[in-house]
Amino acid sequence: MAKDFTTREQDYSKWYNELVVRADLAESSDVRGCMVIKPHGYAIWENMQSQLDKMFKQTGHSNAYFPLFIPKSYLSKEADHVEGFAKEAAVVTHYRLKNDEDGKGVVVDPEAKLEEELIVRPTSETIIWNSYRKWIQSYRDLPIKLNQWANVVRWEMRTRLFLRTAEFLWQEGHTAHATKDEAIEEAEQMLEVYAKFAEKYMAIPVVKGIKTESERFAGALETYCIEALMQDGKALQAGTSHFLGQNFAKAFDVKYASKEGKEEYVWATSWGVSTRLMGALIMTHSDDNGLVIPPKLAPIHVAIVPIYKNDEQFEAISKKAKEIKEKLEDKGFIVRFDDRDTHKPGWKFAEYEFKGVPTRIAIGPKDMEKGTVELARRDTLEKQFVPMDEVADIIPGLLDEIQENLFDRAKKFRDENTTEVDNWEDFKKAIKKGGFVSAHWDGTAETENKIKESTKATIRCIPLNNKKEDGKCVFSGNPSKERVLFAKAY
Amino acid sequence: MAKDFTTREQDYSKWYNELVVRADLAESSDVRGCMVIKPHGYAIWENMQSQLDKMFKQTGHSNAYFPLFIPKSYLSKEADHVEGFAKEAAVVTHYRLKNDEDGKGVVVDPEAKLEEELIVRPTSETIIWNSYRKWIQSYRDLPIKLNQWANVVRWEMRTRLFLRTAEFLWQEGHTAHATKDEAIEEAEQMLEVYAKFAEKYMAIPVVKGIKTESERFAGALETYCIEALMQDGKALQAGTSHFLGQNFAKAFDVKYASKEGKEEYVWATSWGVSTRLMGALIMTHSDDNGLVIPPKLAPIHVAIVPIYKNDEQFEAISKKAKEIKEKLEDKGFIVRFDDRDTHKPGWKFAEYEFKGVPTRIAIGPKDMEKGTVELARRDTLEKQFVPMDEVADIIPGLLDEIQENLFDRAKKFRDENTTEVDNWEDFKKAIKKGGFVSAHWDGTAETENKIKESTKATIRCIPLNNKKEDGKCVFSGNPSKERVLFAKAY
Ligand SMILES: [Zn+2]
Ligand SMILES: [Zn+2]
Repeated sequence: MAKDFTTREQDYSKWYNELVVRADLAESSDVRGCMVIKPHGYAIWENMQSQLDKMFKQTGHSNAYFPLFIPKSYLSKEADHVEGFAKEAAVVTHYRLKNDEDGKGVVVDPEAKLEEELIVRPTSETIIWNSYRKWIQSYRDLPIKLNQWANVVRWEMRTRLFLRTAEFLWQEGHTAHATKDEAIEEAEQMLEVYAKFAEKYMAIPVVKGIKTESERFAGALETYCIEALMQDGKALQAGTSHFLGQNFAKAFDVKYASKEGKEEYVWATSWGVSTRLMGALIMTHSDDNGLVIPPKLAPIHVAIVPIYKNDEQFEAISKKAKEIKEKLEDKGFIVRFDDRDTHKPGWKFAEYEFKGVPTRIAIGPKDMEKGTVELARRDTLEKQFVPMDEVADIIPGLLDEIQENLFDRAKKFRDENTTEVDNWEDFKKAIKKGGFVSAHWDGTAETENKIKESTKATIRCIPLNNKKEDGKCVFSGNPSKERVLFAKAY
Repeated sequence: MAKDFTTREQDYSKWYNELVVRADLAESSDVRGCMVIKPHGYAIWENMQSQLDKMFKQTGHSNAYFPLFIPKSYLSKEADHVEGFAKEAAVVTHYRLKNDEDGKGVVVDPEAKLEEELIVRPTSETIIWNSYRKWIQSYRDLPIKLNQWANVVRWEMRTRLFLRTAEFLWQEGHTAHATKDEAIEEAEQMLEVYAKFAEKYMAIPVVKGIKTESERFAGALETYCIEALMQDGKALQAGTSHFLGQNFAKAFDVKYASKEGKEEYVWATSWGVSTRLMGALIMTHSDDNGLVIPPKLAPIHVAIVPIYKNDEQFEAISKKAKEIKEKLEDKGFIVRFDDRDTHKPGWKFAEYEFKGVPTRIAIGPKDMEKGTVELARRDTLEKQFVPMDEVADIIPGLLDEIQENLFDRAKKFRDENTTEVDNWEDFKKAIKKGGFVSAHWDGTAETENKIKESTKATIRCIPLNNKKEDGKCVFSGNPSKERVLFAKAY
């Protein structure tokens, strides 16, 4: 299957595009910028959703659902927000089609024009805070901690599967609080949830930090983020959590009566991750043989492939395979016994390898004689013969090992590709080479912009718990108190 | 809480609308016809989703995701389909807003007009079959059995929360098969899945049947459905499964090479249930005291309310309550120990009653002395004192009993409100009284229409496995071979 498959070294970007399509994760649709998420890709996304949803509920959040459409005027209510989102929106102007007069097809009915245009949500702060106004009167109504799983649309001119699409799937948390401190705590807590999810489940090491003012979410006072490093040395923002201050409360007039009977504006956060995480997952772990999926998010943990020449062999092998399958299923693993006679074992090996199934068992006539099976692991491609009766006991530990190995490998790569530099020449070289570049910055948007123009590198974040260290801005030479993290980014 | 709450007898429709809002299930948004599904309502929907999703996977389906937008021209490709769906669609015509020249707000940028308008999906047959064309070449690519959880939009002029909204949430299954028989089997299998879900989980007895030609889904050769009866005597269609023949394969040119090497058009089904089921659930079981939720779909199974006058009492009761909670949680139940000091016990009782929590435990100082608790069940409102140490063992059986009782009660109501009639006068009387009316029909759309015009009753379905019985059409007197089921419907 991996025949004619572009390698990462040949063309990383082409490698990614081919991988997504050939591993049956997603494909482009005929609708500009919109993707079709295919079953294998969706199954991974479902596993992500399920784990994230559990973590949101563990931290006291409930799910709800708000309208897909946002009245145009809502977008204008928060000044920064409209600047950030109105420009690339899908606009609904009519609510009816009619038969074309020439009898062929349908046309928009000009009489069915909406009084006010509706925007397909690019994000839901405005529509949600319009509801919160009705829900919040007193401090007793606070906090409100909701999350929504939804599709959103941002009209993008250049799209790439999972990484940047006009429509994408995501979750957006929206919380309302009585105090500033509580809102900041919430935003920080959700950043921790995202970081834990990225590292523990996606096996992706991340840097937690805050965005500079110019990289903040439109309408936020502080944007917290997690940043990951892809194998081509470019950074990818894998989740953001925003402290929104009272901006949306003021825009939508959401006040509460405090315990002391005073009227106060409500404090807000929002936070989200999207199908973009699929792109991060693919690019962090996969290799020239195809997809690699961390066991904790894999739709199938073990594939079992029988090798046989006749019915008798097939039956004996099937019996053993099913025993192994059952033992593993009892331990909570998803096992596929691939007994299709339409494909040869070699084809199946290539298929499971390419699609990233973490472990694969092969059982042939010789194995039956010796009481062994061949056990292959996807991350290292190593194979070993293990006793047939023990394989179901070996696999859980092996899956843990694979999960850990993927994280360690990615962390080693990230650390090896993080460079501290202290002057402009080294900075340019380091950015050109790729990876995170840790450097002093004078704190001005002007310098940030000039660096971006000159090198295409942006400040990914000011890391949390950053070491304070006196230094000079790598670009302007002006004094600086701490290093920030630069990189070219997706 | 149930103060000032309209009773079913006073005004069934008002009762429903008030219930949905006051039980915090959903509310109207400012966007015409679009609802906000609030956390309590969404939690019930999530439980429905989770069970249905399991049943879809058990029957060999996978989830996927297709674009929200459908090019206008796709809708025209299947002739019946466009008639059914194009007329009430949300149409995206532009992809950008710009700042208004007067500096206030944003306006649609006339230069950002789409070449071809996009329709917000009212259902996804067209966009999915356009993909299937690329996915299917040979019989080896079949069957394809996909499901999608998604939002859809149908512009409705008169909307009601859950029952009829412009945007709603649903699942839509779309399958592709090599043979007609296999497609019919699939459509029938999914009807069985829906019926089982309705009866076993929602505790709603349903009649399985097929729709008459005039009530069929736009583009289907056969529409299977389940029909339920609400407490006001009106029927509600609770799920449909369509055998689509080769209509979409022909419209989108989807052919496969058979084992014998012949080119054949592919056979299709589609099937769906939506947030409309929430309306069915509410209207089937709830009463003048508020919502009643079957235990199998309840977000909380047990609420525990402490009654106390001082800290000492509170601590002793809390300790016991937490023990009970833990025992029940170990058995897999969701328990809420409501230790809020902001609300009085009476308020909490009313709250859990109104929101439909199946069982409620109260523990007061006297209970502590006697070693008892008060256990209340929501369906019958009965209360009993049971030993404190046994309540965690009693509740699982009680929840089963409640689930069964709700189904039996609804079935008794349905059966008592199903009338066989054999002449037009009785027919009109029976329809006026409400409920299902079983009568002979001559099989013509003309008669069906006249009956509808005269009585507002429609043929809900021709029941599956219907008894063959010679008779005369209740309207035309023409011969008939079986009875069909009429009712006024939601
Ligand atoms: Zn960052
Ligand atoms: Zn029916």
